[in-house]
Amino acid sequence: MFSEKVINNLSNSSWIRLMFEEGERLAKIHGADKVYDYSIGNPYAEPPKEVTDSLKKHILGEEKGIHRYMSNAGYVDVREKVAKLLQEESGVELSYNNIVMTVGAAGGLNVVLKSILNPEEEVIVFAPYFVEYNFYADNNGGKTVVVPPDTKTFEPNIEAFEKSINNKTKAIIINNPNNPTGVVYSEATLNKIASIIEAKEKEYGITIFVISDEPYKEIVYENIKIPSLLSIFKNAIIVNSFSKSLGLAGERIGYIAASSKIEQIDLLIGALSFCNRTLGFVNAPALFQKVIADSLKAKVDIGEYEKRRDFLYEKITSLGFECVKPQGAFYLFPKALIEDDVEFVKRAMKYNLLLVPGSGFGCPGYFRMSYCVKFDMIENSIQAFEKLVEEFK
Amino acid sequence: MFSEKVINNLSNSSWIRLMFEEGERLAKIHGADKVYDYSIGNPYAEPPKEVTDSLKKHILGEEKGIHRYMSNAGYVDVREKVAKLLQEESGVELSYNNIVMTVGAAGGLNVVLKSILNPEEEVIVFAPYFVEYNFYADNNGGKTVVVPPDTKTFEPNIEAFEKSINNKTKAIIINNPNNPTGVVYSEATLNKIASIIEAKEKEYGITIFVISDEPYKEIVYENIKIPSLLSIFKNAIIVNSFSKSLGLAGERIGYIAASSKIEQIDLLIGALSFCNRTLGFVNAPALFQKVIADSLKAKVDIGEYEKRRDFLYEKITSLGFECVKPQGAFYLFPKALIEDDVEFVKRAMKYNLLLVPGSGFGCPGYFRMSYCVKFDMIENSIQAFEKLVEEFK
Repeated sequence: MFSEKVINNLSNSSWIRLMFEEGERLAKIHGADKVYDYSIGNPYAEPPKEVTDSLKKHILGEEKGIHRYMSNAGYVDVREKVAKLLQEESGVELSYNNIVMTVGAAGGLNVVLKSILNPEEEVIVFAPYFVEYNFYADNNGGKTVVVPPDTKTFEPNIEAFEKSINNKTKAIIINNPNNPTGVVYSEATLNKIASIIEAKEKEYGITIFVISDEPYKEIVYENIKIPSLLSIFKNAIIVNSFSKSLGLAGERIGYIAASSKIEQIDLLIGALSFCNRTLGFVNAPALFQKVIADSLKAKVDIGEYEKRRDFLYEKITSLGFECVKPQGAFYLFPKALIEDDVEFVKRAMKYNLLLVPGSGFGCPGYFRMSYCVKFDMIENSIQAFEKLVEEFK
Repeated sequence: MFSEKVINNLSNSSWIRLMFEEGERLAKIHGADKVYDYSIGNPYAEPPKEVTDSLKKHILGEEKGIHRYMSNAGYVDVREKVAKLLQEESGVELSYNNIVMTVGAAGGLNVVLKSILNPEEEVIVFAPYFVEYNFYADNNGGKTVVVPPDTKTFEPNIEAFEKSINNKTKAIIINNPNNPTGVVYSEATLNKIASIIEAKEKEYGITIFVISDEPYKEIVYENIKIPSLLSIFKNAIIVNSFSKSLGLAGERIGYIAASSKIEQIDLLIGALSFCNRTLGFVNAPALFQKVIADSLKAKVDIGEYEKRRDFLYEKITSLGFECVKPQGAFYLFPKALIEDDVEFVKRAMKYNLLLVPGSGFGCPGYFRMSYCVKFDMIENSIQAFEKLVEEFK
């Protein structure tokens, strides 16, 4: 009666969302303070002052016409500001005509894939990865090819990457800092990827787009700078959102920035704008376009996340978990205490600990913890972890 | 290099959007007051007081957590209010679990079609119709079947509809009041459609969903009441937005309401929520969910639209145009003065008159005028129409 494909997918739906809903259910039974919900990347932090000030300015200013349709690509003044910022960061010349405002990064990724994919073309992703990419590629007639993880460093597995390219390869997705590991890919790694792409493009006579999914770009520790992919890759397409950096996950505001170095860039921008419209997004939410334009240099308090990372990483590793220390995002990705990560996560639920199995990121044997939560939840959860670890001794 | 299908479609892109962009271009050259832009349904009116009051309440109230992710289906309290309103209107029992909040009606239509369509299944539409439906069906693996227009009344052509159903039919889309004609389908017509569907469902052993795309439902004149499709059709799925009724086109806020009478309704709601997520919408914009919940009974001043309709209809028909008098929406759909509507619209552009050819709605020989514009623009445009008519005498 309904779409068979959708109904089949429903049963192996998102682990993140399953755990998020389970957390809400348990909170109703036991009280929110008795549930340790590490499931979803839903920042607890309120947006910074720049956002609330901008909202007030636009709402109280009695400005006319701010809720109407605009061009499908978004307001020109907003796109100009985004272009200027990215040009400063990357050194690559950009104008408003390289930018399309989108309904978050998830919207942006679908728009990009729709614009570039022909049937059966392939999109390479590096495990562990955000598994929604599979749906996004499939929605738009393509499919993902997964490069297996290097579980030592959780940097991209370069050898396996090289082998995964063929004449059907249309794009790769780089998610840096990475969800779920929090690992920041080094510039050396990115340069190696760039060389391989250049060689393979020549070998097969194809164009490979590098899609940079970078909602965590602003969330990095110890003054690490994430290099701009616009300066490393010729065919770079940035997809970003303000969900994490400004705490606006529910407002669905983001953008696409396509490099000026892409051949026929104007045609691509036309296609992106067209797909933004015809996929049903139409345009990025109007008011929040204006708001992010006023808040481009703002971000939530990263110090608060760093405090959580340090505390939790120390506790988790003291308890005997193997874990790479993340340099960005707000996730830990420790190794489970048994091989079966799903079973491990189920056993954690007995202690009201909500974790996401690594299988949900194409990397079984591990689990993800999202620590963009209240600090006292983290503190209170440690006794639950102690009990859990006790079980496996 | 890019998606061939998208690039091919770019050239026969939306006439509405083409004219909208042309209007912006001409306004820069000649000044906005010298351009008579009837191209797009982008309400000039500001949102009603309920909307601005609600925005102020939520922004100034320093409420916590209002910009975060929530369930993919939307806030439960908002869905409850929408359900209650629709239950009052239709007499059909509904709960929050029949409602999924969406990124406007365009987002909602894509989510519905993704959830129900299997490859090559058909969606019946009645010409003249909003041609974006073609993209929405194609995005999700289906295709539209167009019922030719009845240009006498512009009500659905019932005989042709009956013939268009086959064992591949999965849904029909009803857009009432209709864009582009402004015609309100009578209850008798809707009942006839219901009988035909019931008979055909039995004949072929299939389920046919009736998707009601109803962003103009609140914009009706002379106290006409649009009957609720929930009370007429068993397998009714309402898709609505607040773009027109609250003047919030740019904010992308709407909902899906699926009838409790649909078999396995819980599975359908699960599928809708899943598709809302995986198509990249994730959830309807958070703040505006709250805002519309505070404004469900509000609407823009319909009297203002009625004044425009009456003035423009009188002028246009006095000038010799054939036109059905619309009872709803904010469009007129007059017959062009020559057979070739595209040529006619091009000739109108010489007088800075921006019209949309009927070909853009599957109904050549006509043109659409969107009169949700400032009244003095309408008044000033009449001399341009007089000159245009003169040409064809």
